[in-house]
Amino acid sequence: MKSIRVLVVGCGGVGRQLLQHIVNCRHLHAKQNLALRVVGVCDSRSLLLVDNVDEMEFSDEFLLKMCRAKSVGSPLASLSDSGQLLVFENLKVKEKVIDVAGLLGRSTGLVIVDCSASFETVEILLQAIDLSCCIVLANKKPLTSKMDDYEKLISKFRHIRFESTVGAGLPVIASITRVLTSGDPIYRIIGSLSGTLGYVMSELEAGKLFSQVVNAAKGLGYTEPDPRDDLNGMDVARKALIIARLLGLKISLDEIKVESLYPNELGPSSMSTEEFLSRGLQSLDLYIADKVRVASLNGNVLRYVCMIEGSRCHVGLQELPKDSPLGRLRGSDNVIEIYSRCYKNSPLVIQGAGAGNDTTAAGVLADIIDLQDLFV
Amino acid sequence: MKSIRVLVVGCGGVGRQLLQHIVNCRHLHAKQNLALRVVGVCDSRSLLLVDNVDEMEFSDEFLLKMCRAKSVGSPLASLSDSGQLLVFENLKVKEKVIDVAGLLGRSTGLVIVDCSASFETVEILLQAIDLSCCIVLANKKPLTSKMDDYEKLISKFRHIRFESTVGAGLPVIASITRVLTSGDPIYRIIGSLSGTLGYVMSELEAGKLFSQVVNAAKGLGYTEPDPRDDLNGMDVARKALIIARLLGLKISLDEIKVESLYPNELGPSSMSTEEFLSRGLQSLDLYIADKVRVASLNGNVLRYVCMIEGSRCHVGLQELPKDSPLGRLRGSDNVIEIYSRCYKNSPLVIQGAGAGNDTTAAGVLADIIDLQDLFV
Repeated sequence: MKSIRVLVVGCGGVGRQLLQHIVNCRHLHAKQNLALRVVGVCDSRSLLLVDNVDEMEFSDEFLLKMCRAKSVGSPLASLSDSGQLLVFENLKVKEKVIDVAGLLGRSTGLVIVDCSASFETVEILLQAIDLSCCIVLANKKPLTSKMDDYEKLISKFRHIRFESTVGAGLPVIASITRVLTSGDPIYRIIGSLSGTLGYVMSELEAGKLFSQVVNAAKGLGYTEPDPRDDLNGMDVARKALIIARLLGLKISLDEIKVESLYPNELGPSSMSTEEFLSRGLQSLDLYIADKVRVASLNGNVLRYVCMIEGSRCHVGLQELPKDSPLGRLRGSDNVIEIYSRCYKNSPLVIQGAGAGNDTTAAGVLADIIDLQDLFV
Repeated sequence: MKSIRVLVVGCGGVGRQLLQHIVNCRHLHAKQNLALRVVGVCDSRSLLLVDNVDEMEFSDEFLLKMCRAKSVGSPLASLSDSGQLLVFENLKVKEKVIDVAGLLGRSTGLVIVDCSASFETVEILLQAIDLSCCIVLANKKPLTSKMDDYEKLISKFRHIRFESTVGAGLPVIASITRVLTSGDPIYRIIGSLSGTLGYVMSELEAGKLFSQVVNAAKGLGYTEPDPRDDLNGMDVARKALIIARLLGLKISLDEIKVESLYPNELGPSSMSTEEFLSRGLQSLDLYIADKVRVASLNGNVLRYVCMIEGSRCHVGLQELPKDSPLGRLRGSDNVIEIYSRCYKNSPLVIQGAGAGNDTTAAGVLADIIDLQDLFV
């Protein structure tokens, strides 16, 4: 039986779902001669660690107990009296994770899984790479900050996986990597990588008003608490940057031209979420309706996409042919079109649900399993 | 620099293209610290082997020389006086490949790449697996013969890759494997896995006659020399079987219900290809047109698909919703829809060119590179 030791950073929706998936898949992985051994779990304040990382692992019972605690809003630290475990808090967390990375990286091996949404994990991850650990990311931040950090993180390309940073569990990164490594040069990628904006754009086509559609999307739970966090395009820009860097572009987030679907005057510094939803949005209805109409007159549809072509990367509204994979998109699916020598006239297309904790955590788990040949 | 030693079985269109890709990607792979070293190449009659498999490899110049010879119809044996190489013929080929597998499998490692279309390689492959070699297949036959052979071939699942047996280079097998390994159970797969039949079905929708469309497809080079080799559905059935077995179904080719698009009376034992094209096909026009019409009256379109659901696997005509990914398919692209817990209402869809030597060989090369962690 091959042991893959895992330390999970971040215990929000994705992290909790990952722990549940690991427990649920015990039998399946045992058939593949694999055992995932969770030795530590962090939330934003604490790290719970098994007493002896070389030999122990958290029981399934305790992994599920952590899930339950976190899902009702209790911090991990509330479980500190649960028996044979060590608890580290605040500033000690980073230090201790790096200690564990040092202990296990070059001996049994260790996968550090970043399911947080924090900028602060990058320091841990960079050191973990140096210590021969493997890394799996659902967190986009470490890959979208400084180019230097990015290059260090991917310097051992077989030690890192980050499928779930783009399109949740959709096999986007794995497929792009396959195409690139086969010497088939990719010259254009265009994708709809926000379920929220995909839904909004396809509803607009049916003649609805922008303000109606965004309010409906919020009602359906498709948006962030403040929908401007979707409408500003920054989440799509981060995904675009991850793909662009994978294609070899040495660019930073601020070099991507990002079109926000609302002007600065309607931004968070000018009005509250409630004001934006009740009043601000309506002022955009005519402008957006006009764009939709013009696209339709041209025989096209309007989509909010990321486009990477040559050395350019931009994010925003674009007219696309009705009968292209992106043009045919309905609802909240993600779609990505990849153009290369082999997929020239007709692109390689990957489509499906690109959000959700279940799917995202499934992508993370597939990434962990994909690292198995590096473990003994 | 990590060395991946490769022995290529089969030097037809895909095998030749693979050798060219390997040469063209030297620089790319060197940047990943990888060197692919080709130590032997077989065609149907001969094996050319480097003089000393431990230390030598074929030069790029010689790899391209083999490609040129084979592309003008010369056998590999015609290059037997090209210097430091060994030539084995006929019955000696198998024996010698197994010798090399024994020599390299447990020492430097070896990937045996089957680009042939032969049933006869399975014996070599089974022994190579026992000798700790890795295997990459573009050849569907070894995976679609006896269940016993299949189980032995995949017994070391990390040592085998077979992406290019289904949908050429499309990431179908890799994506299904990812979904399965993440504990996301797949309950249905439906796909259009023949570019020829995909083209035929979408042309029929435009009101053309079956006989016209098949003749046009043959004119465009989309079909086998005898189009009945496409129309009988057996190529799709083999692909369906590979997917079904990957999903865990213990079935054989003869347990798949396969609908042929022509009756026995029009088969190769009753008439020649010419007769079939000029006379036989026309007798099917009304029958097929009627099916297309009925589908259309139901608001559907007719597609030739493989469908795997639960323990059932069948291949044939099926009515599908116009606005599903398969219903929207035009031209010769392959499409596959994967339904699982994570991709339930809206499937995971992979679409793109599913045929062609360039794409198929690119898939084979990506498979070889994906084995790199097993090499030193």
